[in-house]
Amino acid sequence: MIIGGAEDKLRKRRVLKEFVAAAGGPEARIAVLPTASSLGDEIVEVYDALFRAEGAAEVVAVRPENRDEAHDADLVEELGKATGVFMTGGNQLKLSAIICGTPVGDAILAAHQRGAVVGGTSAGASIQSSHMIAMGVGGSTPKQRMTQMAAGLGLLQGVIIDQHFEQRNRYGRLLMLVAQSPQLLGIGVDEDTAAVVTEDVLSVIGRGAVTILDPSRITTNAFDAGRAAPLLASGVVLHVLPSGTRFDLTTRTLLTPDPRVDPLEAKELAEAGRDLSQMARDIAAADASPGALRRRLRRKRRPPEDVEYGEYAEHDRQDGADA
Amino acid sequence: MIIGGAEDKLRKRRVLKEFVAAAGGPEARIAVLPTASSLGDEIVEVYDALFRAEGAAEVVAVRPENRDEAHDADLVEELGKATGVFMTGGNQLKLSAIICGTPVGDAILAAHQRGAVVGGTSAGASIQSSHMIAMGVGGSTPKQRMTQMAAGLGLLQGVIIDQHFEQRNRYGRLLMLVAQSPQLLGIGVDEDTAAVVTEDVLSVIGRGAVTILDPSRITTNAFDAGRAAPLLASGVVLHVLPSGTRFDLTTRTLLTPDPRVDPLEAKELAEAGRDLSQMARDIAAADASPGALRRRLRRKRRPPEDVEYGEYAEHDRQDGADA
Repeated sequence: MIIGGAEDKLRKRRVLKEFVAAAGGPEARIAVLPTASSLGDEIVEVYDALFRAEGAAEVVAVRPENRDEAHDADLVEELGKATGVFMTGGNQLKLSAIICGTPVGDAILAAHQRGAVVGGTSAGASIQSSHMIAMGVGGSTPKQRMTQMAAGLGLLQGVIIDQHFEQRNRYGRLLMLVAQSPQLLGIGVDEDTAAVVTEDVLSVIGRGAVTILDPSRITTNAFDAGRAAPLLASGVVLHVLPSGTRFDLTTRTLLTPDPRVDPLEAKELAEAGRDLSQMARDIAAADASPGALRRRLRRKRRPPEDVEYGEYAEHDRQDGADA
Repeated sequence: MIIGGAEDKLRKRRVLKEFVAAAGGPEARIAVLPTASSLGDEIVEVYDALFRAEGAAEVVAVRPENRDEAHDADLVEELGKATGVFMTGGNQLKLSAIICGTPVGDAILAAHQRGAVVGGTSAGASIQSSHMIAMGVGGSTPKQRMTQMAAGLGLLQGVIIDQHFEQRNRYGRLLMLVAQSPQLLGIGVDEDTAAVVTEDVLSVIGRGAVTILDPSRITTNAFDAGRAAPLLASGVVLHVLPSGTRFDLTTRTLLTPDPRVDPLEAKELAEAGRDLSQMARDIAAADASPGALRRRLRRKRRPPEDVEYGEYAEHDRQDGADA
């Protein structure tokens, strides 16, 4: 679960609620990794309180602060028992420098492998991909050297993840990275929003959107553009995915949404459908002179056409009153 | 000529220089339309000084401040004599509300038709398209109702133009508009950057980039997403075009750049090519045992392989020294 940072902690907690549920709800045993953060134990206390409030059975801190501590057998054991692993925000280069390639890092990969949910916010989101964005500046236009890349934890192969995507205007830096590495798929996650990856399907939950940059067919000058020059990036396919949408990471296409129809609306639609079928039968039976149709429509309480246009008309009138 | 705002006025003046040249250089007779601006005559004085400094023969102000004045025959006559028309920044809705559908507006279209260059910056850029962006908020993620549309002057059909694109983080609002009107091509122009459209080819000049959003194959929920909700916009093709690139607006594809090769580099490449041809002939003549090749390479002052790898190695060493 890849969270774009600044997930809501005080109101609906949509994203964190989902994390606890995925970790097993009342059976959840969550290990919190605050290594990216420069904050003290308060950050652990916050997530401890949040996860318990959402019904988790147990929350433990796993906080290596250097590579030696990331070899600690006790920490590895804690991760071995976890049904969920949560990595906080902070500095992803600090996090990767301390845990990648250590027993703690391996234990997170193993937990993911055996089906535990691994989630993270901000820095804890970026580290999940095989290739990790590290530092950089904001701006919409991709420019040479506007950001850098390091190796990530590798829970998700072949992608690069950016976060605070809308709020910090990060189109440019993610475009620069995929222009230089067009075998990667760029994933930008807005704040208080999560990309939940199960098998090879990415689902979106939360307040914002997940932006996908697919550079498979890119034409670029990224290999020889000058320092800090705007880059050519032509033919990138862009997908902006709000909450409720699902995306196939293998075929790189939007998946058809599960049909979710309001039951009342479904009833009205069925009724309108029956009316239209009757009218079609009437026409086929030649009982369909203009006069007959008019009389037929007058008899009906709410003919289907009027329902539809009526709604639009009302909507327009409200808009007019607003302006 | 569509300028993204904040074009350099004090140093290289790359964009304004190009405008004066396109208007005829020493024969240029430029009409400045400052109607979008809320500034006083100072804005005219600035462009007057700039265009004259770049060698324009004459600069006149055409400033209708209401629709009545936009029927003034004298202003129409000035536009009739212009070889270039320049619309300043400000409020594009004020500009369109005053000139569109008036003799002054028609005179600008006529000037364009007869081959005069029509340019504008910021508000003066947006008004040029058939469909004009009007007001709105920044942000990367497209959201319902984040901006509005009005009718533009229509020099360029089938597009919608946004400006200050990178600097004000306007991906979201331009995506919203093309999601709602997928027959339009979205064009976002960075500051101190211009999209120069000749026939149906768009060329980029200046410091930033021009971003093209092609929604021809979009999947979107823009017709029923809730107020202020993030929009689904899947399958938009994105082109980021830096200075020197050209784009075909009809086929919506990047045009192959004009080959521009450094003469010194061309000479070295030709020499290396001759060496390789000689080597190929040697090999074909069976004069190519490993020992013979080694001797042959030793005799050469700078064998082509070493030139190439040598450059890369030097580059890497410099990078290393920087870090």
